[in-house]
Amino acid sequence: MVAPVPGLSINLATVRQQWNMREAAEACVRHGIHAISPWRDQVAAIGLDEAVRVVRDLNLQVTGLCRGGMFPAATAELRQAAIDENRRAIDEAAALKADCLVLVVGGLPGGTRDIEAARSMVRDGISTVLPHARAQGVKLAIEPLHPMYAADRSCVNTLAQALDMAGEIAPDVGVAIDTYHVWWEPNLAASIARAGRDGRIFAHHICDWLVPTKDLLLDRGMMGDGVIDLSGFRAMIEAAGYFGSHEVEIFSAQDWWTRDGDEVLRVCVERYQSLCAARV
Amino acid sequence: MVAPVPGLSINLATVRQQWNMREAAEACVRHGIHAISPWRDQVAAIGLDEAVRVVRDLNLQVTGLCRGGMFPAATAELRQAAIDENRRAIDEAAALKADCLVLVVGGLPGGTRDIEAARSMVRDGISTVLPHARAQGVKLAIEPLHPMYAADRSCVNTLAQALDMAGEIAPDVGVAIDTYHVWWEPNLAASIARAGRDGRIFAHHICDWLVPTKDLLLDRGMMGDGVIDLSGFRAMIEAAGYFGSHEVEIFSAQDWWTRDGDEVLRVCVERYQSLCAARV
Repeated sequence: MVAPVPGLSINLATVRQQWNMREAAEACVRHGIHAISPWRDQVAAIGLDEAVRVVRDLNLQVTGLCRGGMFPAATAELRQAAIDENRRAIDEAAALKADCLVLVVGGLPGGTRDIEAARSMVRDGISTVLPHARAQGVKLAIEPLHPMYAADRSCVNTLAQALDMAGEIAPDVGVAIDTYHVWWEPNLAASIARAGRDGRIFAHHICDWLVPTKDLLLDRGMMGDGVIDLSGFRAMIEAAGYFGSHEVEIFSAQDWWTRDGDEVLRVCVERYQSLCAARV
Repeated sequence: MVAPVPGLSINLATVRQQWNMREAAEACVRHGIHAISPWRDQVAAIGLDEAVRVVRDLNLQVTGLCRGGMFPAATAELRQAAIDENRRAIDEAAALKADCLVLVVGGLPGGTRDIEAARSMVRDGISTVLPHARAQGVKLAIEPLHPMYAADRSCVNTLAQALDMAGEIAPDVGVAIDTYHVWWEPNLAASIARAGRDGRIFAHHICDWLVPTKDLLLDRGMMGDGVIDLSGFRAMIEAAGYFGSHEVEIFSAQDWWTRDGDEVLRVCVERYQSLCAARV
């Protein structure tokens, strides 16, 4: 039996091309990884009941369910459909006992250009589903996404902005802090400290920014292969009082998604442990 | 003779594949455009003296020279070389009577990961060349670049951050506000208002954000083809007291750079005039 790797979680998007959710979860355990974060399509592919069995049978921590959100839409009907979809996502997160539901909040509704209107729709959407999340015991984590996704994925693009929005909604709405999305952010240390002080850090994702980045969506790097100061980031987030999981989330169509899944997990563990060692 | 198009400037990167600086400038005049902004390599290709003659002969406004900056470097020698290069850029801007020298400030020095250190090098670099710029009568405009360029082109990534930095350096350091780079920015209206109040808006660049964006650098859109609320942007910048030029700057390897240059300028004029009309 391989030694457990405390603090490491694998977002299953990282191995989505290699395995289904059960296969990926079993592979994680083989590598000493006892925390995962699945995507809803991965849950759906094996069925929610089977996904719950996987988590229970393998005694896994679920550090998040990806994803809710996508609130902005051009019509009231479509916005209501998004609300309904988020309620289903909350139910799934509850069934999986996920630490949080990660919210990728959505960008501009098709054909529109008013990003402040989109941001209002996000605020309204989260506020609307929050009572259901509370009733189900599910925490909602706004994930600020890199500004290059502002149009089509998320109109919340900095940690400071996500914290402002969470503050406007409720004390129990938090954030998911992903190194890839916010590493460049001005006043990052102050915003991370604020997130910790306010008890809003519900998840922490790690990967690296490659130079050059060849694709806006699917060219994220393995920790250590890019330019993000991941040790410094870890120091900031621990200084903010966060000692939860470090969840590796890598979209990489041309590289990591093409490799053997066991190799991917082996490298995730190595790089994560290097980061831990660098910290001491 | 075509009617002049007041307020429109063409950044000559927009037609860099079609023409040299003289050809591009003459084409602009053919289309009623009497303001340009050349890049230093375009000036160098015909020689500074000839570039000055082009501007004088055609009676052109030069809304900016692109670009100074690129201050961060791994060694003191390389940082000094960047300072020297910026002094030459200032001299060229003075010779061309450019409204400002646009600063693309630079990203992480190769092999480094400390973005705050890079930002300090930028502050130091601008402070160091500022006396020379003043002596030459050249205004320095920090251009915040989209965060997707934080690693390799600019560690100044929001207008708010650029204004903070300008404020730390001197009252006569300004900003170049490009719709492409800052359209997504939280609290954008407030930052633009602040820039105007502080007298720091030295240049304004326009183009559009395409969905999808296929390349991080060379897939910018013609005004109207993307998702930026350019009318709203214009309203914000005019509310801030800016009534200077609107400089079209489009890097577009697969589209506009492959078209006939006269077609590009014709469409620039059309779209710019549509924006002006929409404003009334």
